[in-house]
Amino acid sequence: MGKVYLVGAGPGAPDLLTLRAARLLEVADVVLHDALVHPDTLALAKRARLVDVGKRYGKVSTEQRFINRALLEAARTHAVVVRLKGGDPMLFGRAQEELEALAHAGIECEVVPGVTAALAAAAATRVSLTRRGIARTVAFLTPRVGRDEAASAWLPAAMGADTVVLYMAAGAAQSIAAALIAAGKPADLPAVLVESATLPGEQRLFTTLAALAAEALPRAQGPVVMALGEVFRDRAAVDALSLERCQRAI
Amino acid sequence: MGKVYLVGAGPGAPDLLTLRAARLLEVADVVLHDALVHPDTLALAKRARLVDVGKRYGKVSTEQRFINRALLEAARTHAVVVRLKGGDPMLFGRAQEELEALAHAGIECEVVPGVTAALAAAAATRVSLTRRGIARTVAFLTPRVGRDEAASAWLPAAMGADTVVLYMAAGAAQSIAAALIAAGKPADLPAVLVESATLPGEQRLFTTLAALAAEALPRAQGPVVMALGEVFRDRAAVDALSLERCQRAI
Repeated sequence: MGKVYLVGAGPGAPDLLTLRAARLLEVADVVLHDALVHPDTLALAKRARLVDVGKRYGKVSTEQRFINRALLEAARTHAVVVRLKGGDPMLFGRAQEELEALAHAGIECEVVPGVTAALAAAAATRVSLTRRGIARTVAFLTPRVGRDEAASAWLPAAMGADTVVLYMAAGAAQSIAAALIAAGKPADLPAVLVESATLPGEQRLFTTLAALAAEALPRAQGPVVMALGEVFRDRAAVDALSLERCQRAI
Repeated sequence: MGKVYLVGAGPGAPDLLTLRAARLLEVADVVLHDALVHPDTLALAKRARLVDVGKRYGKVSTEQRFINRALLEAARTHAVVVRLKGGDPMLFGRAQEELEALAHAGIECEVVPGVTAALAAAAATRVSLTRRGIARTVAFLTPRVGRDEAASAWLPAAMGADTVVLYMAAGAAQSIAAALIAAGKPADLPAVLVESATLPGEQRLFTTLAALAAEALPRAQGPVVMALGEVFRDRAAVDALSLERCQRAI
């Protein structure tokens, strides 16, 4: 029986992997990875058989069962199995289903945390998600809902937190912004969308809830993180102080 | 004029640093670091002058001004300046004050995200913070408040989110639990405290809001992350399935 490592691959750029994750990839026998993991990250797994178990959101439950089965099979035949997930495994990653399948089968496991997309997006904007006197609480959420869940299940957390970061939200940005305004968020609340954070195609759009509610965004090429909050209002003031000279060199 | 990198050192274990952070430490001329950064992480900065600008929460504003001044001074006299912060720089790290001081002075800067303590704690418990049908929203917050802020400013976010992770909360766990029960959270809501996550002294305590409210905890030796939510109820069920065989080998 092997051991399974649930490993966060980080937000995109291959050098935002942790040292522990890199070492595990180097010694892995099998790597089951998500679709969006960077090729340079996979290239670290020199000894391993690579299995793309990637799924885009949508066709999920059958594929999750397939992933669970593939994990158990790999652990029964190899010593070091890495399950490599985008970002961090414990945030919007369906890790629990995989952990429970492994526990049921009595297979040893370990979770290796990673850099999550929200924090990569914050780094890209150079705006801290928390700020003394302005934002003391941050909500991380996704507006995607399962079959048996209310469509607005995410709304109380978004209304209660000072800063809100939404994963997998770009396609629904217009309806999300409208719902937040209807629920009482100020229409001029600053918002930022970061596409492909930490990758060469990184894009940042500074806007407001009202502007997002007014018209649909063009379809994004890469994954998008959407963030809202008064902390991003200062960005305008900071820009005036020529923070734009502070280029990110990826 | 040099360039300043605001770098996340990760949650504690030195191998949970990112590859990018490790490379920057190797080429840094000066490293200004927090108090709790691991000695093995600092040892990567072979060429650098190390400056401990660490502060524990409490005596803050004067020291933050001192840190800002030290950053500017270092950037004026060295090419590569690393400001190394525990966890991720953009979450509860007062990064904005440092970014603005650098912007005012026209000094180039870049933010390198890191693994935040909440995700290290989730890895340590092997419980995902989100779970289909149970928890779709997560709030990260701290009950610590500034001089001009309401003591319960964190409560709406904590009430609105399915899973709640509190930073710098251990000393106030009893009053936090009582406030949450008074505001309507169920008394039997599962809670977990993780002390010194990812370090050899790591401790996990699985409990409930009611138990936390009933008596004060002994003083912790290391930093503590406190997390609450129905996701942790499953932990008991998973334990019964012998997940305890899944030892974390740090």
